[in-house]
Amino acid sequence: MKRVLMLLTAAAVVGCSGTQGEDASDVDGDVAAAISDINGQFMECVSQGDADLCSSLFTEDALYGAPNLPFAQGRTAIRDAWEKEMEAGMESLRLMTDEVGSFGDTAHEVGRYVVEGPDNVHLDHGKYIVLWKRTSEGWKAHREVFNSDMAQGPQD
Amino acid sequence: MKRVLMLLTAAAVVGCSGTQGEDASDVDGDVAAAISDINGQFMECVSQGDADLCSSLFTEDALYGAPNLPFAQGRTAIRDAWEKEMEAGMESLRLMTDEVGSFGDTAHEVGRYVVEGPDNVHLDHGKYIVLWKRTSEGWKAHREVFNSDMAQGPQD
Repeated sequence: MKRVLMLLTAAAVVGCSGTQGEDASDVDGDVAAAISDINGQFMECVSQGDADLCSSLFTEDALYGAPNLPFAQGRTAIRDAWEKEMEAGMESLRLMTDEVGSFGDTAHEVGRYVVEGPDNVHLDHGKYIVLWKRTSEGWKAHREVFNSDMAQGPQD
Repeated sequence: MKRVLMLLTAAAVVGCSGTQGEDASDVDGDVAAAISDINGQFMECVSQGDADLCSSLFTEDALYGAPNLPFAQGRTAIRDAWEKEMEAGMESLRLMTDEVGSFGDTAHEVGRYVVEGPDNVHLDHGKYIVLWKRTSEGWKAHREVFNSDMAQGPQD
């Protein structure tokens, strides 16, 4: 299977230049474009307040690892987790992909996020790793762990 | 490149059975064993209070994503991050790997951790994703993001 690794916005992560060497030529634009498209849907589902749509972007048996909670497992639990985040004030989500690597039906993404609330108030920003899986429904988020860069989490 | 995916202790993660289907036959025991060995060294460096040893288990340009801090980038910053965690009371680290997938010189791991302090007091437990990279020095942790399962982080 073809190995691919691409940096989408390496300059946005301080010091990521070191990863750009041997792998930068192995670019699978299709996978990166698919993930970029789905990340657009993540941002859209938040702006629409549609937790069902958000959870549909995960695999059926996904593990969603938010801070200060055990893994939410499966779309129903993940739907509830996103609904709670929206109820807590999340009205806008911005995702910035720094690295994508893909290998057959699996891909990984390293990125950063920004969350805003009503009137564009800044609520949180941080980093994440997502493991993606290609399914019969297309690429889906399969494993995710993220945390805040802020000295205290948004809900502290 | 050969694609491999194995579940080491799938039973330990509720609901991971769904991932055991098509990929379970693709097992690269060597990579899983290497990661298990290095995780043993992570646990050992903490019990020895040796932040230099801990940081040597990462790639030169690794990104270490602890909660409530930006990515620590590179071994010096990562060394300092581990030293601070030890100064905050971490005397024991237990790592439990739930899933490993490897693809050529890249691997990913999903797992859980437990941190204990003096007199085995429980300080923290949570989950992580690590992206591993095979280097001339062997497998090294290259990207890591983790967070606590506890309702409030260990330092709140």
